[in-house]
Amino acid sequence: MRRKIGLAELENIAMGAAVLGTGGGGDPYIGKLMAAQAIREYGPVELVTVDEVPDDDMTVAIAMMGAPTVMVEKIPGGRECIDTFKAVQSFLGKPIKYVYSIEAGGINSTIPITLAAQLHLPLLDLDGMGRAFPEIQMVTHTLFGITATPFTMADEKGNSAVLSTIDNRWMETFARSIAVNMGATAHIGCYAATGKQQREAAVHGTMSLAEKIGATIFKARADHANVLRAIQDVTGAFLVFHGKLIDVQRRTVAGFARGEAILDGIGVDAGSQMTIEFQNENLIAKRDGAAVVTVPDLITMIEEDTGEPITTEQLRYGYRVFVLGIPSHEHWRTTQGLKVVGPRYFGYDVDFTPVEQRFRN
Amino acid sequence: MRRKIGLAELENIAMGAAVLGTGGGGDPYIGKLMAAQAIREYGPVELVTVDEVPDDDMTVAIAMMGAPTVMVEKIPGGRECIDTFKAVQSFLGKPIKYVYSIEAGGINSTIPITLAAQLHLPLLDLDGMGRAFPEIQMVTHTLFGITATPFTMADEKGNSAVLSTIDNRWMETFARSIAVNMGATAHIGCYAATGKQQREAAVHGTMSLAEKIGATIFKARADHANVLRAIQDVTGAFLVFHGKLIDVQRRTVAGFARGEAILDGIGVDAGSQMTIEFQNENLIAKRDGAAVVTVPDLITMIEEDTGEPITTEQLRYGYRVFVLGIPSHEHWRTTQGLKVVGPRYFGYDVDFTPVEQRFRN
Repeated sequence: MRRKIGLAELENIAMGAAVLGTGGGGDPYIGKLMAAQAIREYGPVELVTVDEVPDDDMTVAIAMMGAPTVMVEKIPGGRECIDTFKAVQSFLGKPIKYVYSIEAGGINSTIPITLAAQLHLPLLDLDGMGRAFPEIQMVTHTLFGITATPFTMADEKGNSAVLSTIDNRWMETFARSIAVNMGATAHIGCYAATGKQQREAAVHGTMSLAEKIGATIFKARADHANVLRAIQDVTGAFLVFHGKLIDVQRRTVAGFARGEAILDGIGVDAGSQMTIEFQNENLIAKRDGAAVVTVPDLITMIEEDTGEPITTEQLRYGYRVFVLGIPSHEHWRTTQGLKVVGPRYFGYDVDFTPVEQRFRN
Repeated sequence: MRRKIGLAELENIAMGAAVLGTGGGGDPYIGKLMAAQAIREYGPVELVTVDEVPDDDMTVAIAMMGAPTVMVEKIPGGRECIDTFKAVQSFLGKPIKYVYSIEAGGINSTIPITLAAQLHLPLLDLDGMGRAFPEIQMVTHTLFGITATPFTMADEKGNSAVLSTIDNRWMETFARSIAVNMGATAHIGCYAATGKQQREAAVHGTMSLAEKIGATIFKARADHANVLRAIQDVTGAFLVFHGKLIDVQRRTVAGFARGEAILDGIGVDAGSQMTIEFQNENLIAKRDGAAVVTVPDLITMIEEDTGEPITTEQLRYGYRVFVLGIPSHEHWRTTQGLKVVGPRYFGYDVDFTPVEQRFRN
């Protein structure tokens, strides 16, 4: 099914993607402004489901990588996205007919919309994670043997790179050091994949889901309804904690925003404390020292009254939030998936336990 | 004038280039073995002077970058050089007809010979420094506005990169971090230039000079003549110090071999001490704390009896050496040249004084 993404749909997608972004993916506001400008200038973007894409048609992910804390201070121009897109196309030697989002969350949900508008290309209703993750190899495409190569990078100064690596973990290493040299953020084009590959490997329907989540939040606000309940209904989220932010530690290390947020419990959670550790995205939530939700399941903080999702760079003392746990896509819950994005990959000595086994709706 | 480089010429070039390499440029022995094998397999290489190259014909430098201390432990294969060459050609979209050496010294004098043999391409009798320097932008081509872009890189594992930057100093930053990720060394192709550009920008005759220096050393040894005197005659070198190596500090930092060698004076230099600091190449020689020779002039240690040039990774306690100072190419002694490779660029708070102003032959 094809339909259009105009300004109203963009508003919803940006909001909903930030819920799926689990604190990462960059600032949703700047990305939304850029996409809105592109839609106004070039017209609405066509959103296409994966079953409509011919087997051999080529698609590509266009995104930004780096520390979101820095992305908010470097408003991206439009040229770099087009450059990275064209560089992939030139390396492949064949036309790319669709653009897609590498991850749900912040700027990386809206950059593909911007580019799709500028180039009059359709946008795919899918992504590579069903959430946001901090590293390049952390896409479901990796689990299906799809390579990030050719991986193209560009910065706002005019520097660019095309990388080709033997596996996607090596790509993370190479691309990260270039992104650091590019000033902690870079524009990237990667994971070129055919329609057939996308049907097998991608997380389908992510853009629609983000739009639905966003619409639900706006509607609940307008209706003065219970925003938490509305979000839970549309995402299947579990309420993990209700708390007030009492401390945030944050540092930009090796091209990532790393740190932790500490919450004092409120209401039924009074007397308990929750610590949420992040590397761009929220990775693990510990209640009184014990892990209760971990990657790959989603950990998202929403503001208590408005349901506004809070990114790691927006964390401020005093925020009153609900911490949500949302089951991740089944691809991530396999043995192979957990090797790539499970808690042990990130250095936590705990096994993954699905959030639905610890919490009840 | 065209002539052939066979096994005898190779022997001389490898020896002479190590004198010009000022301690850097990688191990001359391994590079020589590789080139010898290529010459045996594919035949001698044609050496061509720059005035024979048509204005518009394209040339490219093929080399290794990284810490020479690591290069000696990672014997390079042949495929990576060909890959980097082809990647430059593919990026430019036109055939490359000549190969050249980016620097005199160790492995980077012989890698282009290896490739020229393998691809049956002529080798240019020139280089980009007239010596060796540690960083990518440190070629006379930079002084004439020639770009390192497209800069191609490959490692032995099968990873590769094509970089494009706004200036050659940025290329150093980007390429260095990739080289570090490739395991502290990488194969590179860069500084594609036309015949016309080479006539203006390159240091001419470097391969012939290296060959002549090498032949002189071998002849002096065979004749039981004064090797030091013979080297001085052919290079215009000044004798800066006669000493015994009493200490070497060496570490691999950020993709470079950095450190210093300390010599106790012998003979006329008895009672004095010389410290030579290096970053892959020897940068500064201090006598009793005061700088007496600095970049861009060449500082080379040769073994007292054999005249064998000693690279930074070969430095060992007890070596008895002559320290030579050789005037650098005039391109480096201009204001612009000194900005790129003068002592202040490397963090030394001294002005450049030409070696011939401090020493007499």
